[in-house]
Amino acid sequence: MESPTFDYAARCQRVREGLRAAAADALLVGPSSDLFYLIGLNRPQSERLTLFILPAAESERPRLLLPSFEVALAEPLAHFFDLIPWEETESPFERFAAALPDAAPGQPLRLGVADQIFSHFLYRLQAAAPQAEFQPGGALLNPIRMVKEARELEYLTQAGAAADRTYHALLELPLVGMSEAEVKQQLMALLPQHGHDSGALAGAIVGVGENGASPHHHVGPRRIAPGDAVVVDFGSSVNGYWSDMTRSFHIGPPADEYRRVYDIVNEANQLAFEAVRPGVTAESIDAVARGHITAAGYGDAFLHRTGHGLGFDIHEAPYIVQGDTTVLREGMVFSIEPGIYLKGRFGVRIEDIVTVTADGARRFNLSTHDLQVITP
Amino acid sequence: MESPTFDYAARCQRVREGLRAAAADALLVGPSSDLFYLIGLNRPQSERLTLFILPAAESERPRLLLPSFEVALAEPLAHFFDLIPWEETESPFERFAAALPDAAPGQPLRLGVADQIFSHFLYRLQAAAPQAEFQPGGALLNPIRMVKEARELEYLTQAGAAADRTYHALLELPLVGMSEAEVKQQLMALLPQHGHDSGALAGAIVGVGENGASPHHHVGPRRIAPGDAVVVDFGSSVNGYWSDMTRSFHIGPPADEYRRVYDIVNEANQLAFEAVRPGVTAESIDAVARGHITAAGYGDAFLHRTGHGLGFDIHEAPYIVQGDTTVLREGMVFSIEPGIYLKGRFGVRIEDIVTVTADGARRFNLSTHDLQVITP
Repeated sequence: MESPTFDYAARCQRVREGLRAAAADALLVGPSSDLFYLIGLNRPQSERLTLFILPAAESERPRLLLPSFEVALAEPLAHFFDLIPWEETESPFERFAAALPDAAPGQPLRLGVADQIFSHFLYRLQAAAPQAEFQPGGALLNPIRMVKEARELEYLTQAGAAADRTYHALLELPLVGMSEAEVKQQLMALLPQHGHDSGALAGAIVGVGENGASPHHHVGPRRIAPGDAVVVDFGSSVNGYWSDMTRSFHIGPPADEYRRVYDIVNEANQLAFEAVRPGVTAESIDAVARGHITAAGYGDAFLHRTGHGLGFDIHEAPYIVQGDTTVLREGMVFSIEPGIYLKGRFGVRIEDIVTVTADGARRFNLSTHDLQVITP
Repeated sequence: MESPTFDYAARCQRVREGLRAAAADALLVGPSSDLFYLIGLNRPQSERLTLFILPAAESERPRLLLPSFEVALAEPLAHFFDLIPWEETESPFERFAAALPDAAPGQPLRLGVADQIFSHFLYRLQAAAPQAEFQPGGALLNPIRMVKEARELEYLTQAGAAADRTYHALLELPLVGMSEAEVKQQLMALLPQHGHDSGALAGAIVGVGENGASPHHHVGPRRIAPGDAVVVDFGSSVNGYWSDMTRSFHIGPPADEYRRVYDIVNEANQLAFEAVRPGVTAESIDAVARGHITAAGYGDAFLHRTGHGLGFDIHEAPYIVQGDTTVLREGMVFSIEPGIYLKGRFGVRIEDIVTVTADGARRFNLSTHDLQVITP
């Protein structure tokens, strides 16, 4: 994966402003998409403590606690923060306590905790700094991460095009007779061949016939046969930014109900897409898709939310679901993926990634929504 | 990946005994290797709450909170626990509060928290159950997970053999002229070809020449040339259980110091291996390897611990490092991987996975430790 260079210092600056507005003294961030977003360091979750401490006060430099033998990985990035290495035989938690900024006079030290820090670390950080008040810190980061920068949108656009090419190549395979597991294996090979990062994480759901009625079905030995409905949902990353796309198709001529269900899902997708614009809420987009499917009599069969934000994480804020009152802004990116699932029979889901534009929305996936009927 | 069936109910039973001994009322476990270990459900970390509640009291059945549209994934496993599905538009945290067991009369409710629950979930669980005392719960699980069952040892043995075959195949490639990134790409392809799970997570470190002196080096464009030392460290899984193996080799005849360093690391590996037996501590194995390297004058160049436990996680307890006083028992599994890193010049690391036997240790990796000198 290419290592894209963003203006990390500017991103941190925006978070520091948020910290000051929230009267917090620092934000704590471990290995996660948050850390990659803030300083460009892409490290796996690990039992060794790596922790970025971003102080609110301009007089304090940001600092990164990390294992001393990994200093070489962070040095090229560390032009606006200090490195605090810890040795294998010492306690990183004592180092952490010593590295904390001071509280405001007469106030307790207030530390925001990013979302993706494991509980065992949080407990040990708390024990090492008993004078501090720890509090959830995700709300300081998520609103900033939600609005994508131009380069992030470029990568997401490329990811959408790579997913389109992957789907096109999938449809050219002799699908009839293949098992779900075989189709998934083919998808995993096609994703990097068609422009996704080589060696990146990738995922695929393949649901054939009745298995398509389980939205997160694990692939199994079920083979594609004439008369089957098929759902494929897949994605991987371009420069770390995810694609995510679902299409539903049919082997041989479908029955009338399948066509009807397909049309309803497709209309729900289109109506939700047309409802996207700056100023409306995330949950209002869900209401549009759900309202259409409910009015058609399938409300109980639309088992999940309409969508999820997407970027360096495959699922991130905002969520297109009742209760998410995030006001959409230009540059936000999320999926629109209504579905209808008829237990024991079949499922239909159509998913595109969209971004909010100045006056509406733009899709990153451009593969047709017309029902594809595959000749067996 | 094949889905191995273990006696999950028996594993949960042992944890329940530990809960009662610790006077805790229940253990909370989210998607993680812990959840897979306890009930066989392999789910990714997600923003949707999936939480296993394991009560201490025999009168209470274990229960799994999960998104309602994923019930089909858990049903085949749910013969000894109840499913508590939550809908997309309701709060899983209210469901959680209602699903908690009762506290002992006159006592607060005490909840153990497994290690790998994200902070944002922990904060919301705590807010939903303000009457409960939450405490770290990893110590209830790790001692049980550390001692592998016969079938787990079988999978780890197979993983070691798959790593050996992968390394053998790597050495048959025309390595001279290849970049680190290319060697890694080849390794990622060889791992499943030689018996690792197809589509599984996999990792590889390739450090050429001076880059070998950074233990966790990220691969780059550096090409293998005559006169280079090379370090390769790689692994993937068999039925979910990891291999992890490092070998160091040289292109063309090495200088005397390389040979000397290689021999010291190799001796440290062998001495540590010979020190393993039931009843000694994890840190004592580190002391043996470190003592040898230090006596040879390279103590400051052995930058990391001697090893880490391994199983369904690539890094898990016990850790072979000063401060880990775990007493080794038959069936524990960990790496022995001493190394010497000379900044700007080269590195040497030799890593095998070993298991503690009744009277000593057994290696899962059997590839030779003799220095391989590759003819350029």
